[in-house]
Amino acid sequence: MEQTLYIYNSITREKEKFSSIIPGHVGMYVCGPTVYSDVHLGNVRTFLTFDMVRRYLEFIGYKVRYVRNITDVGHLTGDSDDGEDKIAKKAKLENLEPMEVVQKYTNGFHDVMTIFNIGRPSIEPTATGHIIEQIEMIQDIISNGFAYVSNGSVYFDVRKFSEKFNYGKLSGRVIDDLLSNTRDLDGQDEKRDGLDFALWKKAEPQHLMRWNSPWGEGFPGWHIECSVMSTKYLGKEFDIHGGGMDLKFPHHECEIAQNVGATGHEPVRYWMHGNMLTVNGRKMAKSEGNGFTPEELITGNHKLLERGYTPMTVRFFFLMGHYASTLDFSNEALQAAERGYKRMTAAIQTLKQVTPSEKSDFDASKLREACYAAMNDDFNTPVLISELFEAVRVINSAKEGSIKLSAEQIEALTQIFQDFFYAVMGMKDEEGSGTSELTESLMQMIIGMRADAKANKDYATSDKLRDALAKIHVQIKDTKEGATWSYEG
Amino acid sequence: MEQTLYIYNSITREKEKFSSIIPGHVGMYVCGPTVYSDVHLGNVRTFLTFDMVRRYLEFIGYKVRYVRNITDVGHLTGDSDDGEDKIAKKAKLENLEPMEVVQKYTNGFHDVMTIFNIGRPSIEPTATGHIIEQIEMIQDIISNGFAYVSNGSVYFDVRKFSEKFNYGKLSGRVIDDLLSNTRDLDGQDEKRDGLDFALWKKAEPQHLMRWNSPWGEGFPGWHIECSVMSTKYLGKEFDIHGGGMDLKFPHHECEIAQNVGATGHEPVRYWMHGNMLTVNGRKMAKSEGNGFTPEELITGNHKLLERGYTPMTVRFFFLMGHYASTLDFSNEALQAAERGYKRMTAAIQTLKQVTPSEKSDFDASKLREACYAAMNDDFNTPVLISELFEAVRVINSAKEGSIKLSAEQIEALTQIFQDFFYAVMGMKDEEGSGTSELTESLMQMIIGMRADAKANKDYATSDKLRDALAKIHVQIKDTKEGATWSYEG
Repeated sequence: MEQTLYIYNSITREKEKFSSIIPGHVGMYVCGPTVYSDVHLGNVRTFLTFDMVRRYLEFIGYKVRYVRNITDVGHLTGDSDDGEDKIAKKAKLENLEPMEVVQKYTNGFHDVMTIFNIGRPSIEPTATGHIIEQIEMIQDIISNGFAYVSNGSVYFDVRKFSEKFNYGKLSGRVIDDLLSNTRDLDGQDEKRDGLDFALWKKAEPQHLMRWNSPWGEGFPGWHIECSVMSTKYLGKEFDIHGGGMDLKFPHHECEIAQNVGATGHEPVRYWMHGNMLTVNGRKMAKSEGNGFTPEELITGNHKLLERGYTPMTVRFFFLMGHYASTLDFSNEALQAAERGYKRMTAAIQTLKQVTPSEKSDFDASKLREACYAAMNDDFNTPVLISELFEAVRVINSAKEGSIKLSAEQIEALTQIFQDFFYAVMGMKDEEGSGTSELTESLMQMIIGMRADAKANKDYATSDKLRDALAKIHVQIKDTKEGATWSYEG
Repeated sequence: MEQTLYIYNSITREKEKFSSIIPGHVGMYVCGPTVYSDVHLGNVRTFLTFDMVRRYLEFIGYKVRYVRNITDVGHLTGDSDDGEDKIAKKAKLENLEPMEVVQKYTNGFHDVMTIFNIGRPSIEPTATGHIIEQIEMIQDIISNGFAYVSNGSVYFDVRKFSEKFNYGKLSGRVIDDLLSNTRDLDGQDEKRDGLDFALWKKAEPQHLMRWNSPWGEGFPGWHIECSVMSTKYLGKEFDIHGGGMDLKFPHHECEIAQNVGATGHEPVRYWMHGNMLTVNGRKMAKSEGNGFTPEELITGNHKLLERGYTPMTVRFFFLMGHYASTLDFSNEALQAAERGYKRMTAAIQTLKQVTPSEKSDFDASKLREACYAAMNDDFNTPVLISELFEAVRVINSAKEGSIKLSAEQIEALTQIFQDFFYAVMGMKDEEGSGTSELTESLMQMIIGMRADAKANKDYATSDKLRDALAKIHVQIKDTKEGATWSYEG
């Protein structure tokens, strides 16, 4: 790669030079959604972060295999308390079917990803689609002595594992502290130690999702799916594992333990964690009533929102913060982001209308290098955005005529936005921001009528046209190249 | 249900009164796409048919659980011919990963479904997501004596099955004819009889998709997944099974044999088969070069297409034929459908502008009954469309003033289109057919200027405006209620 990228690695707690296991290829795994409820905006931030990471890796030339799973093993139960029989007797169609719930929320999740222009992963595996592989990895862990069967369930033996390996390496937790603090966990009677976690759970009679296993009917524990699906598609060791900060412990810590327990290998080279979204300084949580959905955000239909914000405004807002920092969501911050986003898109339009000069007072190549430098520094999108605002300033100066831009520099600036604003940041022009063919035709017709009136010194008509347009928020500006128009809808 | 629906049942070859197993509920399974290539237009017709079926069932009050699978067990092979070892040694990321191919074409399929406004199923299960369940059903079939293991594969014993049950019942094939005609099939050395079909195939070393099973590493045969997934989510016996005509044999025949072999139950009450799409009278096939993709259809970028057609034009065209009849695709037919579709949508708009009278020369309730009658007669959408054109005729007469419509009848007609055109036929207003707020404001401004000019007897200006609009394909019409405009983009 021409670019030298540095990534903050959560497990070493250092910014490290990125080097992929296979030159030119990157394997990246990100923990996806649990599809038993609507995705909230904090989740969106995480997926948007890794969308940006993937975009940049691809932009600088890597072939990325991006795996993002769907956690669809849920804990829905039926109304029976005396076993399978009663459930089986009832007609299938009248029963709650967990996969119908899964489908509903998976669809909803995909819709939200589309709205925010978050690209689809290369593979989107489901936990239920990998039961056999999960059973096999559990068998390997048992064979290696790091798990035990108890009453039809299988638990990972954390104490035993920690005698040989470092449990707590990623999260920085001290195993002895953990072991002494876990006396009151649920189901500990089945466990040798409260810290042990389930690899396989015996299904109670009313549990609706269940599969046969060497240990009887049951379902996999939460952590094992990611150990299985990441390595199945990316190899025993792969480049990047991402997820929200809240997954660091226990989920990612358990993933490492499972992989090491099964294969002896640490699975991940670079651990990346996206930070949390707060709302007016408070943690986003259902109990706080501030965990609004993307739909509420767009419509503004929530008591904490003064009005709605477009998906690209929100995307821009997210990228104005560094992924590893907390980001506070407020109406003021959103409105500031909106102004910035509009200024930038307006400048991109303006650039098309700048008249090239022979000479240039500006050299875009340095700006381009600065954009790369920002992204190479652990994907520093806020710095990237400030560099792009430098370009906005240049464009506006050129438009006002205070600096000159050559055709070549105009082209170079255009390319910078194409590359960093659209390709890397993943921004897109919003629907309705473009103009329909008919609207443009009508405007050109009116502009023509106004020009005719002026040519005929019929200022009454030309003023009337200008005033009528102003009423519907259309401004006309005369430039050397003719009249241009803009609309503030 | 208030409506009495008749469905042509492929297995009895009769139109039968529909009665669901559980009152008020319908379980429907449709064979979905194989996601190892792009979907073609013939597939789209099938999925659109069952989308319409589902819509009508829901419209008349059923709660429908609609399961449409994804066949993602593919037959991709790696470049190794000396076993797993060589594959395992190579880095994962450099190898072809079947699930990456699956993801790509699944995404493409979903996009096409969205374009044609084909609703999402309640559950969209994948074959790879149900390996355990497939193994279990195969074990049941073996236990019942209708399958045998041979060299690591498992085959269904058609001869043995047909001694007790009717193999060929759905397709009408005669078992003795079939048995004497199958001497030259592939792999028959492993089979007791050439007609036997694979339930489980041993994986050759280079085969990339493989799972452990009681018979060694392998992958499921093609037919077993549908037997498993339909009954897992809909019950051992369910209401409707749909698919393309080409799946009747062997796929659906094998499905019945598998379910009966495993459980003794016939799985399906009503078998429905959508018929084929031909192109200029010839079968749609890759070898004929006439199997164009939905994208080619929309853009018109194909040698057989004179120009592009919108998705809703194509949807309307498909519904102009009865699902059980072959439908011939030609430019002439598409253009006729387009004219019909435009006439209908224009009438829906016109209806909004009809001035209500005190009395009415038309009673919409009879038309409404006729619409139901058409759909109750095995989903006869061509007859439904002709009934809706009767409504179009009435609306246009009302607009011209030759008949009168009361407010109540206008409302009833509006509801008929809402129900049958939008909800049941699944038509939607196409993007770009609506008008942006700005366009409407500009048009109202120009219409106002024209009215002012006329009022001032300044006909030069009003004519100039009219001519300028005509140039950009905008027509203005004066009505009693003021001027209206239309655009032929």
